[in-house]
Amino acid sequence: MKIAVLPGDGIGPEIVAQAVSVLNALDEKFEMETAPVGGAGYEAAGHPLPEATLKLAQEADAVLFGAVGDWKYDTLERALRPEQAILGLRKNLKLFANLRPAILYPELAGASTLKPEVVSGLDILIIRELTGDIYFGQPRGVRTCPDGPFQGEREGFDTMRYAETEIRRIAHVAFQTAQKRGGRLTSVDKANVLETFQFWKDIVIDVHREYPDVALEHMYVDNAAMQLVRAPKKFDVIVTGNMFGDILSDAAAMLTGSIGMLPSASLDANNKGLYEPSHGSAPDIAGKGIANPLATILSAAMMLRYSLNKAEQADRIEAAVKKVLAAGLRTPDIYEPGTTKVGTAEMGQAVVAAL
Amino acid sequence: MKIAVLPGDGIGPEIVAQAVSVLNALDEKFEMETAPVGGAGYEAAGHPLPEATLKLAQEADAVLFGAVGDWKYDTLERALRPEQAILGLRKNLKLFANLRPAILYPELAGASTLKPEVVSGLDILIIRELTGDIYFGQPRGVRTCPDGPFQGEREGFDTMRYAETEIRRIAHVAFQTAQKRGGRLTSVDKANVLETFQFWKDIVIDVHREYPDVALEHMYVDNAAMQLVRAPKKFDVIVTGNMFGDILSDAAAMLTGSIGMLPSASLDANNKGLYEPSHGSAPDIAGKGIANPLATILSAAMMLRYSLNKAEQADRIEAAVKKVLAAGLRTPDIYEPGTTKVGTAEMGQAVVAAL
Ligand SMILES: CC(C)[C@H](C(=O)O)[C@@H](O)C(=O)O
Ligand SMILES: CC(C)[C@H](C(=O)O)[C@@H](O)C(=O)O
Repeated sequence: MKIAVLPGDGIGPEIVAQAVSVLNALDEKFEMETAPVGGAGYEAAGHPLPEATLKLAQEADAVLFGAVGDWKYDTLERALRPEQAILGLRKNLKLFANLRPAILYPELAGASTLKPEVVSGLDILIIRELTGDIYFGQPRGVRTCPDGPFQGEREGFDTMRYAETEIRRIAHVAFQTAQKRGGRLTSVDKANVLETFQFWKDIVIDVHREYPDVALEHMYVDNAAMQLVRAPKKFDVIVTGNMFGDILSDAAAMLTGSIGMLPSASLDANNKGLYEPSHGSAPDIAGKGIANPLATILSAAMMLRYSLNKAEQADRIEAAVKKVLAAGLRTPDIYEPGTTKVGTAEMGQAVVAAL
Repeated sequence: MKIAVLPGDGIGPEIVAQAVSVLNALDEKFEMETAPVGGAGYEAAGHPLPEATLKLAQEADAVLFGAVGDWKYDTLERALRPEQAILGLRKNLKLFANLRPAILYPELAGASTLKPEVVSGLDILIIRELTGDIYFGQPRGVRTCPDGPFQGEREGFDTMRYAETEIRRIAHVAFQTAQKRGGRLTSVDKANVLETFQFWKDIVIDVHREYPDVALEHMYVDNAAMQLVRAPKKFDVIVTGNMFGDILSDAAAMLTGSIGMLPSASLDANNKGLYEPSHGSAPDIAGKGIANPLATILSAAMMLRYSLNKAEQADRIEAAVKKVLAAGLRTPDIYEPGTTKVGTAEMGQAVVAAL
């Protein structure tokens, strides 16, 4: 089995290196091939997603991704900016199902900005549709406003859209995931305003008929943003579109106060996937050896479970991470007095030792 | 000067009645005329925004609005549902600037789900554009997918759009408001993905040249959702589009834990405005006399300040509200042991007495 390793920019290479060490320490051996992506892709081949990188990702059984982006690419035209790599990979690999757990490790309860009683034991999963919605809808651009009160002047515009098949397949993923968890699913929409999401809601209700054992509720996105702050533990699985999912999954991750701990998976219809930490490339601390590699290591565990069918190895990695946390090791982002501050490599090697 | 009073549904009539008592207790007298809206409009005239109600709102100098919505209208077709009244009023009265303060009263610090040190002293203002974006963009609907991988099947779709004039005028409101406050403005966009918001960002940068004394920063909406949870006090004024503003302003309000305290203003180009509490119609507690009328009373104060040019009277009301809080009066939503629990009318009358 082959893993495409795309470290990217900023802290990407440092944290991915630790995840690779952990994978190499398993009994099972994997073929891994590395390629540049994001700003590194632009430097190497003039494009954030070089052709050879895309080809490698397409041929591999799974992709381990670091992070992309750096201020120094801010002035490039949008098509060449690092984040286009991640959009291009999602679209080309048809990675329509993004799984973003927001879990608060008991040892890190203090890191949250929320009161302990509101977040302790938090364990929710946001399932974000990842290849549709206003992210890719056509037409889009800047044009002369065709009618209405601003006719004749310039306007920026985009198209939000979801086809029936796109909603059905993410709904199936969501219901099946809810079945394996607490049996509760919240579908987040804005059906009171958007045609796209009235349609979304109608289809989700229809798919629900195949999953009578799952309790389904519908919630408007503005209310969902409030409930995540008010009582996040009331959620089990949340499913929503690409745009709302972008916003809510980041808010949910931040509730834990330890986004450096949160992995993510982006899956296609055959469980091939791209795995990456939920945090960004953090160029301000790149190269300092202080970034938290655990989200990436836990992403590698998700990869073993979902794409490579090695659930036992995934369990081993997750248990090892819990062990190092219990032993009090902390990178600076999750450090608290009374624990032991360690760097990126030290943390990665501690996980290897705990395997 | 004439005020259109639209109590609406659920707790709307109870809380508006208290705000009207407060207005009547001022030296200045205002002409007030009441009309049904939302579900009440549907009951009275078969439409959530009856023609006579719209006409009254158009002729008045300001609109005092309660809240709309009740589960019993959930099965109506969308065009007849209560919330269409609020969309119709915004559009017809051209109320493009929505001002939503998120303020944490020191006496209510404990009500927040966030740690006191994260939110104590919170005082941010979200300025949401209210008549453009994907809320009103055409075309929209359900159609046969015209091309791409889902060609031929049904799809829901909407159009996001902002014309140059729409962005310029809300940017001017935002910069001028920031000048009167802390001098800092955060423009929230998704310029890395959406053409509409790359255009938005370009125009905001252009308008900024007229306000060199305001410090402008740009933030992606997903990051803004995170920063509101992580360090909300770092914000001063936030300006954003209709859709992002819907989500972020509700999240920000919930940070305070006391959404029953938060007013809002929706203004047109001449400072005519609609004023309403940030919370909803809460049909579950309607008629019980326990709803918190303070957000509506504070909305009336905003009305005096922004639309009726009576800043002194506004100050008086706000001071009276602070007094009743300091005296320990609390409706159930903000009650804590050691304070005095009161009902809707008792709270309203306490404000009148404190004037
Ligand atoms: C970088 C950006 C295009 C991307 C998105 O909006 O999807 C990011 O925010 C994410 O959530 O992975
Ligand atoms: C009721 C709904 C249409 C409305 C909106 O989305 O604008 C509400 O959520 C609000 O924020 O006033």
